[in-house]
Amino acid sequence: MKHGANIYKYASQLGCSSNEIIDFSSNINSYHPNITLTPTSDMLVRYGDTTYSDLRESIQNKYQIKKNQIALYNGATSAIFGLLESLKKKRVTLYAPLYGEYEKASLQTNKHITKINRFKNIYKKPKKDSIVIFVNPSTPDGKYYDLKKLFTLWREQNCTVILDESFLEFENLKSFRAEIKSYKKLYIIQSFSKFYSCAGVRIGAIFSNKQNIKKLQTPMWNLSSFDVAFLTQRLRDSEFDTKSKKLHKKNKKVLVKILEDSKLFDTIYKSDSNFILTKSAKSKEIFKHLLQKKILLRTCDSFDYLGNNHLRFGVKDSELHNKLINAIESFKS
Amino acid sequence: MKHGANIYKYASQLGCSSNEIIDFSSNINSYHPNITLTPTSDMLVRYGDTTYSDLRESIQNKYQIKKNQIALYNGATSAIFGLLESLKKKRVTLYAPLYGEYEKASLQTNKHITKINRFKNIYKKPKKDSIVIFVNPSTPDGKYYDLKKLFTLWREQNCTVILDESFLEFENLKSFRAEIKSYKKLYIIQSFSKFYSCAGVRIGAIFSNKQNIKKLQTPMWNLSSFDVAFLTQRLRDSEFDTKSKKLHKKNKKVLVKILEDSKLFDTIYKSDSNFILTKSAKSKEIFKHLLQKKILLRTCDSFDYLGNNHLRFGVKDSELHNKLINAIESFKS
Repeated sequence: MKHGANIYKYASQLGCSSNEIIDFSSNINSYHPNITLTPTSDMLVRYGDTTYSDLRESIQNKYQIKKNQIALYNGATSAIFGLLESLKKKRVTLYAPLYGEYEKASLQTNKHITKINRFKNIYKKPKKDSIVIFVNPSTPDGKYYDLKKLFTLWREQNCTVILDESFLEFENLKSFRAEIKSYKKLYIIQSFSKFYSCAGVRIGAIFSNKQNIKKLQTPMWNLSSFDVAFLTQRLRDSEFDTKSKKLHKKNKKVLVKILEDSKLFDTIYKSDSNFILTKSAKSKEIFKHLLQKKILLRTCDSFDYLGNNHLRFGVKDSELHNKLINAIESFKS
Repeated sequence: MKHGANIYKYASQLGCSSNEIIDFSSNINSYHPNITLTPTSDMLVRYGDTTYSDLRESIQNKYQIKKNQIALYNGATSAIFGLLESLKKKRVTLYAPLYGEYEKASLQTNKHITKINRFKNIYKKPKKDSIVIFVNPSTPDGKYYDLKKLFTLWREQNCTVILDESFLEFENLKSFRAEIKSYKKLYIIQSFSKFYSCAGVRIGAIFSNKQNIKKLQTPMWNLSSFDVAFLTQRLRDSEFDTKSKKLHKKNKKVLVKILEDSKLFDTIYKSDSNFILTKSAKSKEIFKHLLQKKILLRTCDSFDYLGNNHLRFGVKDSELHNKLINAIESFKS
């Protein structure tokens, strides 16, 4: 269940404050303007509107999805656990590698897990009537898949489809949300913390048809009033959207160039998201050296079909990229 | 699952904004000073420290409980559902009336429910090996019970004891927390939203011994970073504590006098908390009339062993109490 590495653990190892660590392991949008929302006593003292109608409206407008097709959870992790808990089917097919939490949630809800290696064998038939889970763009490599052919296969196998599109917004990639109408067994997992640059704001969603959403028992009073107000505002902030995408494009190009120019990596995976996966025989040494420079990378040994030779770099801004360049230079010299 | 009434529903009925409704149905501390915490972009962008060590330390100091005796949830409601989900015993004894969410959570986790009427039959033996649930001070009447005799009975019956002490802090009442050492099957439910005046801050806790806490699988990244920072600060704010208790004492006396002077109620229950239960043959009319004046009360027909004749009033401040006086006067004239 790791989105990035645990900066708090490494800070304690290095004997420094967690604030001093430059976290290239995290894959949160690197654009984070000042917060303009001021929490008021009135906002905090009252029980919130548990229909969260303003937030739903923002999501509806942003994602072209109806209000009654949205189930809200306090974070995508909670959404994943809640969904797997509510689905009665016992067989899960994971397209691996993918986030650790899908396996963890499957185990915790007593599912039987089969894995398909999407690098090698992506069109292997999943078990009939099973739940299939696919993250698109994928992690930790960031590849975006055209899912048409797979979706046909899943339909033929009568699969319940869980599609995680949490990293779709950085680049203008096509969503599968519109298929909610056409396929009753489709669920989309949507995290807001990545693109909207707010890992500390605990709100995530499931999109599905009205009937499925009704069946999901989301607990009441689940969401922080501040978080709801913040996300509602940010979803409506078109400038945030435009600036994020522009900066992302620029910064990603720079990061890829830094990694290429370093000549340290045998493979730099083509990514359609805001993180870059690399492979190098020297990965362990690179990780250790950069950590001494207080730059934390994401190791990938917890991912299926990858190993010690893989490292993932989040796209950051020019200031942090410059620090990365210096640290890499000092490694080579 | 109602702490108060749904102000949003009534606002829509009355065709007014929810802000215009004076909410006497809610039992949140009426002292709510300005919020001094300003959320920063840095606070929101990062994954929080999932050990929540600062918050745990604040709770430890405030409640004289060790850090490893605390399980944190996003609200007491989540804590209740999580705890009942994790307890394998199938029989639950509810000391009724009590919050609706205990019954709801018991049903949702497929427990078999027995109820004991604590007004009439409090020392009736609960089933051997069952889970007993007691709220102290109780709702909706606010009576504080000396639990010594009951606790002996529960031990004899080998019961798992869930004690909800969410309303204990308004008056200096003795907690049962210290018994966590002496009885392995004791769990304390602690809401922070009532006394700390923050229903929109979604954090609640279970206190129990280290082994029990370890077994409770609380999800990761569950708490809002803003909420964590806010509650940590407020728990450390001794002025908030002192002022709250002082104001509570004064305001409660005033509210009781208003209710007595009105001569509308056959019974005004003695409360050890921040809400007052009343009984009157005219309750329905009083509720309707006050609602027209945009004052919302808590009806009690959803509570066992109570009925249409009961109304609950939250202790508020002098401004709102004056509005209540005027509304009551206009009812009588």
